[in-house]
Amino acid sequence: MKEIGIGLLGFGTVGAGVVEGLQQNGDMMAERLGVRPVLRRIADLDIESDRGVTVAAEMLTTDAAAVVDDPQVDVVVELIGGTGIARELVLKALAQGKAVVTANKKLLAEYGSEIYAMAEANQADIYFGASVGGGIPIIKALREGLAANRVESIYGILNGTCNYILTCMETQGQAFDVALKDAQELGFAEADPSLDIDGFDTAHKAVILASLAYGAPLSADKVHVEGIRGLHKADLEYALEFGYRIKLLAIIKRDGDQVEVRVHPTLVPLDSMLASVNGVFNAVMVDSDLAAETLYYGSGAGRLPTASTVLGDIADIARNQAKDASHRMSAVPRTGETLSVKPVSDVRTRYYLRLMPADKPGVLAQFTGILGARGISIESVLQKGDSVDGHVPVVIITHEALESDVDAAIQEIDALDAVLEGTVRLRIEV
Amino acid sequence: MKEIGIGLLGFGTVGAGVVEGLQQNGDMMAERLGVRPVLRRIADLDIESDRGVTVAAEMLTTDAAAVVDDPQVDVVVELIGGTGIARELVLKALAQGKAVVTANKKLLAEYGSEIYAMAEANQADIYFGASVGGGIPIIKALREGLAANRVESIYGILNGTCNYILTCMETQGQAFDVALKDAQELGFAEADPSLDIDGFDTAHKAVILASLAYGAPLSADKVHVEGIRGLHKADLEYALEFGYRIKLLAIIKRDGDQVEVRVHPTLVPLDSMLASVNGVFNAVMVDSDLAAETLYYGSGAGRLPTASTVLGDIADIARNQAKDASHRMSAVPRTGETLSVKPVSDVRTRYYLRLMPADKPGVLAQFTGILGARGISIESVLQKGDSVDGHVPVVIITHEALESDVDAAIQEIDALDAVLEGTVRLRIEV
Repeated sequence: MKEIGIGLLGFGTVGAGVVEGLQQNGDMMAERLGVRPVLRRIADLDIESDRGVTVAAEMLTTDAAAVVDDPQVDVVVELIGGTGIARELVLKALAQGKAVVTANKKLLAEYGSEIYAMAEANQADIYFGASVGGGIPIIKALREGLAANRVESIYGILNGTCNYILTCMETQGQAFDVALKDAQELGFAEADPSLDIDGFDTAHKAVILASLAYGAPLSADKVHVEGIRGLHKADLEYALEFGYRIKLLAIIKRDGDQVEVRVHPTLVPLDSMLASVNGVFNAVMVDSDLAAETLYYGSGAGRLPTASTVLGDIADIARNQAKDASHRMSAVPRTGETLSVKPVSDVRTRYYLRLMPADKPGVLAQFTGILGARGISIESVLQKGDSVDGHVPVVIITHEALESDVDAAIQEIDALDAVLEGTVRLRIEV
Repeated sequence: MKEIGIGLLGFGTVGAGVVEGLQQNGDMMAERLGVRPVLRRIADLDIESDRGVTVAAEMLTTDAAAVVDDPQVDVVVELIGGTGIARELVLKALAQGKAVVTANKKLLAEYGSEIYAMAEANQADIYFGASVGGGIPIIKALREGLAANRVESIYGILNGTCNYILTCMETQGQAFDVALKDAQELGFAEADPSLDIDGFDTAHKAVILASLAYGAPLSADKVHVEGIRGLHKADLEYALEFGYRIKLLAIIKRDGDQVEVRVHPTLVPLDSMLASVNGVFNAVMVDSDLAAETLYYGSGAGRLPTASTVLGDIADIARNQAKDASHRMSAVPRTGETLSVKPVSDVRTRYYLRLMPADKPGVLAQFTGILGARGISIESVLQKGDSVDGHVPVVIITHEALESDVDAAIQEIDALDAVLEGTVRLRIEV
């Protein structure tokens, strides 16, 4: 049987998962594919530590470039992460016409244009299924299954750490700091959690999804990003009273020749499928013109789920190489359109506002007056005896309004003497 | 730009959707694929009726064989349905090495072996994404995305008609007959609803999914099938009290070298993703050894969602043909294993039993005695004042038990003088 040689760059958690997956299911893959995937070399700076899988000592090297250059390596699997050496090695492999599989969302979000162009120029395959959604085959769905569709919107829960923290805050009534600390102790959050909880990881993934949906690499710095740090558990409780759950969403939404790409905590209706996605799970809801709503759900991270997708990409490449059909598909298939990113100030959506007035008569009238003057109409108001940090908030759900109007209204409200704390503003979607 | 010629067999709802999708998004598909999909011929017995799409009169013919033979037709799209002329035309196309796209689940469930062998022998492509799940790319996920995985189980809500009826029964408290009649009036159920509500449509889809998961065409007559006809709304209500919702599930579950393939109304926990799938939507939950749980959700039927998947298959074939890479993938990739279908009598699962005793003292002790004697242990019991058809039922949830033991126990219970009606038995999964 024909073989496809795999060179692994990075022998961390996912790398070890890929090795384990191959050892466990390599024979079955060979049956399915008619091509045998064979691990040839593994490069890592640390080739001493035990990863829980057994590999021949001569397979390991600290020289990653040698793995890329090895003529027995047909597919380079980049699991190093970051945009330094990983970028160099990916470009080097593609320049040789070798196939590349990567799970590196940051690299693709920041250097996608350069990498996709290199793949195109050398008619090389680049697959990046594991860069978004771990074990969920969402990249394949967008790039292939929905190829006949114009994407209207994508809503994604793309970060397991954030979703786990939000689930704990809601179900156990934990404060953000407590939930984060618990998540860190359980290994669901990094010691330095910023990449996750400040929304940057989700933003990288949003850039990749938007590029696939609209056929052009998108600039990562155009994405509006707000994380979940400092989210108050009171807001999760008020949201529930209105029939919503708060999720950190990546939102990609087409509006004419503009596309919104934003990441922020978002109220989603309790009866939506996205509201049912709890704990470390991820999900992506795609709305497109022919298929309508489709949703993809599963483990967004983890050793074996991510390895599943890396190996699924290798399976695709094996099928291509068996038929001498490399570059059967562009990295980011063009759609014939050029969309620009809509500034967040131009976004129209519904808002959740928690205002913190001193308990003075007439203050609610002041709030509604300020909102009304800017054309922001109110759907419902909640003012209850429960206090947040010692004060009784007013919670307002608005009808659809313009972000810049809401910004201005909040600025005006927060300048009132009768307002004790900055207004909390969250957005409502789906 | 290179073109790929499409010949459409069957100009019904989905056929018209394919034409509409091509008219709407054909240019975009050409950009994405680098190959232009072009509709060449349409065959139907009726070439007069208005389908809501405009096609050139000379494109229409009543001679389906001529469409298959047309040298300008590279892909034959079979949307006739059934196992008569559809089977002949599919085999004829494959025999010529032409690519085939079909949405015909009955054909594949009953004649899959013959059709897949013909594709193999002629190195022809056969894609059948729309045969299961309408707009949901579940076939692609199983055949490609999860190629590195051993599938442990699949649970599918695969029939929108049944799911719609069950949702109406639960949310509106309708009796089965009323909900069915409403569904028929709204066009969600056929005038002759048997294929849907008696579970056969779901069974056909289960056979296709099981074949893909385990790498071998499976005999459709081995599937245990129970539909939702005559399901009592009381059972939906009792299920809810225990924390479950009733869904018609296709269940495919591996146990060593056997595989269970069954279709029946099933209690699923309210907090499972499957319980959130309401109305005409479909979903498939796959559990596999590397990816763990993944779920795919969307419109299980309908003109444009089904067309989306048909056109997605055409996109794949276009990419293959552009690289001279036909038959890049087997219809049903082998896994190197041979599994047999487990008889339903050997299934072990949890049960919901609704027993209908006359209100006599000691009858509950008799029931529990009969169950206990067969090793069926009880997890919970509910006996409430509410009556069903004038009687007060006893509802029992069991721990895991053997189907044949439960059969025998029910037979013994139903023979008791104190039992007024046959026991209702449902299974609990997920």
